[in-house]
Amino acid sequence: MIKAEIKELFRNQEKFIDQKVQISGWIRTLRDSKSIGFMEINDGTFFKSVQVVFEDELENFKDVTRLSISSSVTIEGQFILTPEMKQPFEIKAEKIIIEGQSTSDFPLQKKRHTLEYLRTIAHLRPRANTFAAVFRVRSLASYALHKFFQDKGFVHVHTPIITGSDTEGAGEMFRVTSLDFDNLPKTDEGKVDLNQDFFGKETNLTVSGQLNAEAFALAFRNVYTFGPTFRAENSNTARHAAEFWMVEPEVAFAELADIMELGEEMVKYVIGYVLEEAKEEMEFFNSFIDKTLLERMEQVVSADFGRVTYTEAVELLKNSGEKFDYPVEWGIDLQTEHERYLCEQIYKRPVYVTDYPKEIKAFYMRANDDGKTVAATDLLVPGIGELIGGSQREEREDVLAERITELGMSVEDYWWYLELRRFGGTKHSGYGIGFERLLMFITGMKNIRDVIPFPRTTGSAEF
Amino acid sequence: MIKAEIKELFRNQEKFIDQKVQISGWIRTLRDSKSIGFMEINDGTFFKSVQVVFEDELENFKDVTRLSISSSVTIEGQFILTPEMKQPFEIKAEKIIIEGQSTSDFPLQKKRHTLEYLRTIAHLRPRANTFAAVFRVRSLASYALHKFFQDKGFVHVHTPIITGSDTEGAGEMFRVTSLDFDNLPKTDEGKVDLNQDFFGKETNLTVSGQLNAEAFALAFRNVYTFGPTFRAENSNTARHAAEFWMVEPEVAFAELADIMELGEEMVKYVIGYVLEEAKEEMEFFNSFIDKTLLERMEQVVSADFGRVTYTEAVELLKNSGEKFDYPVEWGIDLQTEHERYLCEQIYKRPVYVTDYPKEIKAFYMRANDDGKTVAATDLLVPGIGELIGGSQREEREDVLAERITELGMSVEDYWWYLELRRFGGTKHSGYGIGFERLLMFITGMKNIRDVIPFPRTTGSAEF
Repeated sequence: MIKAEIKELFRNQEKFIDQKVQISGWIRTLRDSKSIGFMEINDGTFFKSVQVVFEDELENFKDVTRLSISSSVTIEGQFILTPEMKQPFEIKAEKIIIEGQSTSDFPLQKKRHTLEYLRTIAHLRPRANTFAAVFRVRSLASYALHKFFQDKGFVHVHTPIITGSDTEGAGEMFRVTSLDFDNLPKTDEGKVDLNQDFFGKETNLTVSGQLNAEAFALAFRNVYTFGPTFRAENSNTARHAAEFWMVEPEVAFAELADIMELGEEMVKYVIGYVLEEAKEEMEFFNSFIDKTLLERMEQVVSADFGRVTYTEAVELLKNSGEKFDYPVEWGIDLQTEHERYLCEQIYKRPVYVTDYPKEIKAFYMRANDDGKTVAATDLLVPGIGELIGGSQREEREDVLAERITELGMSVEDYWWYLELRRFGGTKHSGYGIGFERLLMFITGMKNIRDVIPFPRTTGSAEF
Repeated sequence: MIKAEIKELFRNQEKFIDQKVQISGWIRTLRDSKSIGFMEINDGTFFKSVQVVFEDELENFKDVTRLSISSSVTIEGQFILTPEMKQPFEIKAEKIIIEGQSTSDFPLQKKRHTLEYLRTIAHLRPRANTFAAVFRVRSLASYALHKFFQDKGFVHVHTPIITGSDTEGAGEMFRVTSLDFDNLPKTDEGKVDLNQDFFGKETNLTVSGQLNAEAFALAFRNVYTFGPTFRAENSNTARHAAEFWMVEPEVAFAELADIMELGEEMVKYVIGYVLEEAKEEMEFFNSFIDKTLLERMEQVVSADFGRVTYTEAVELLKNSGEKFDYPVEWGIDLQTEHERYLCEQIYKRPVYVTDYPKEIKAFYMRANDDGKTVAATDLLVPGIGELIGGSQREEREDVLAERITELGMSVEDYWWYLELRRFGGTKHSGYGIGFERLLMFITGMKNIRDVIPFPRTTGSAEF
């Protein structure tokens, strides 16, 4: 008898023909007549389930027919090819061991549930097809990102989660503390005495690992981060979560154009990997979530991404004749409606916009010679808008220090970041990609809450 | 001319023989006489540096000779094999472009610095050999862990960092809040009004992703987490950090023995991967950090890990004749001195201790039939002590609920964790491995602060 996971049964059918096998899993469906029963068993290793046939010769036939959906069982039986049936094979049970019974109030019965309802049972929803598919794709896409960078020799840097600094010079951050809320120590001036906090000062949850990654890029040349980041933003939308994962490559001796190429190659690699490794899941999304998904993904993998400057893009939008909710003028931060119009209507493929006005971009982006723009880029993709945001970093210590001061920040707070420029600083560039946004792009899921195992959003930190 | 990274030059020397190449990197050493100079250039892609020879024919010869250590340069020149020299090849420069000058006060001059001093310049220390080696090994070991689990079809689950629950039912946690410390909203009773906090309740940083991983194991069968975890413990030791990364596989239909095998295979795989992919770095550790490291690693890869019950281990320790600081009696939590004695003196290899007294282990571990012990295991390794801690999980809802109550915790807080048992719960097991402890084991580094890029410890959250 061969102990097998269900994925092996599907992928190596020849190996099992007429063999006795043992599988374990959860009952997805169960029906029976007086003397024969059928169940579909899923063990989570594969998107599809195995059909098991059992007859009343089994001594526990009656008990088995009474099992509720999601009960766990171990089945021993004959593996039989069934070329004439819908499923390629089935197992004729010789023994069924009941591992754990489920109760009749199991919330995932066969009928379809709303995504909103499924969020309230995040501990059970990975047993539903949609989430079995989403979270396997999440795992594969995550691995594909690691593989892409590691195969190129990039060094993975675990940048800190708890931080004493605010990378973006903006952004609402979560405070981290070990002080007793109901008994805060005070200074003589009546302020909270942060000297008594765990780290002896104010600390927050990171919004980006970029500044730390830059330090490592200036030692290892090619590095990337992949970790959780946080925003305490009170935005109750389908696109915002308080906790999400971000990938941030950073490359020394690289100009903006270099990391744009890297980003294009990365997006195509990850999508290609998922299309290959999660065929069944992607077909499911295409059938039940978004009928144009596979077509769009194939197109992204084969397209050359467009390139346009912000200034040109503004002209294109103004001359498009389209009425936007938010009017287009040079200097505005492009809104999702503009971003989507650019890539969906004008370019009909992903497009990089470059050289944004410095006022709407972060302090560390390299000033262009025109005095107005910075060497920044956003990658816009159909259906989503911004997927990647990157820039060449300001490597000139004096220019950087001046910009920090100009924005009312303190150069002392950035002492080590400035020192990176003093000790053999060189041109370098990097970008960030929100992992959940990439997943929404790949799966067609419309709400960020549905691509995160246990989402954290305004007012919600359940499970 | 071929643009190349230094790793390629070393790994594919044949390709470059007598070719013109372009490299970029940072100056590690520089010396010159009147008409000729030598520098070692490192670009971070490889542990070793390239020797560059330059002569006074270069128009900027004088400027180059005046460069400080760690200045960044781009070199164009001839790649020449030098079989008679210490280094296998060198580059004869035809052009040297100065990318970014360093200043003479660059803190990493050639002399050796203490590890303590290097911690104060965490933004620069990856340019020192020890940390170039440590952080490349960190990246490779991290990838090896992903590769190990992904090749087996495990699903990577990103468990939440911000959590409303305390997994271990113990442990000092960091509070996460968006409230204004100097202006906390109060309830009528004078308590802090947590309804007004971001999540509408008290939230903390996770100490483990296990409970969430269990939910996914009961859907996907084989899952693992790999993410940051936190302890607000005031322990200023070489082994404790407030923020560290943990890997937690969780497997449905698996008994304790199954995940012990998995853990043994994993440890061997990761070490084997690093020995293969980071030869130069491992040789460096063996020469400069710990002379017995390579021997120990080779031995771990080839040994069969020992297995002994806690009860037997206590007998072995009591009968050993060894004087311990902390006396051994059945019921005690084994101390590092006991753990190390067991694996270093008695077994002389890694050893799994199993079936610990339930009083010293967590509530979710499966009760053994003896009524005294639980199906728990720790893997002890030479030089470190505990590397892995795991258990079979209590799958019986009534037994689990009773234990939760017995320990003064509330079954309501664990409603969804208990539900996992109600809806087709099955036997399942998992373990956790502290990633930094694994790195200390592999590199021979003795302080956890030296294997974390930007460590967070009591009183310290710099960079």
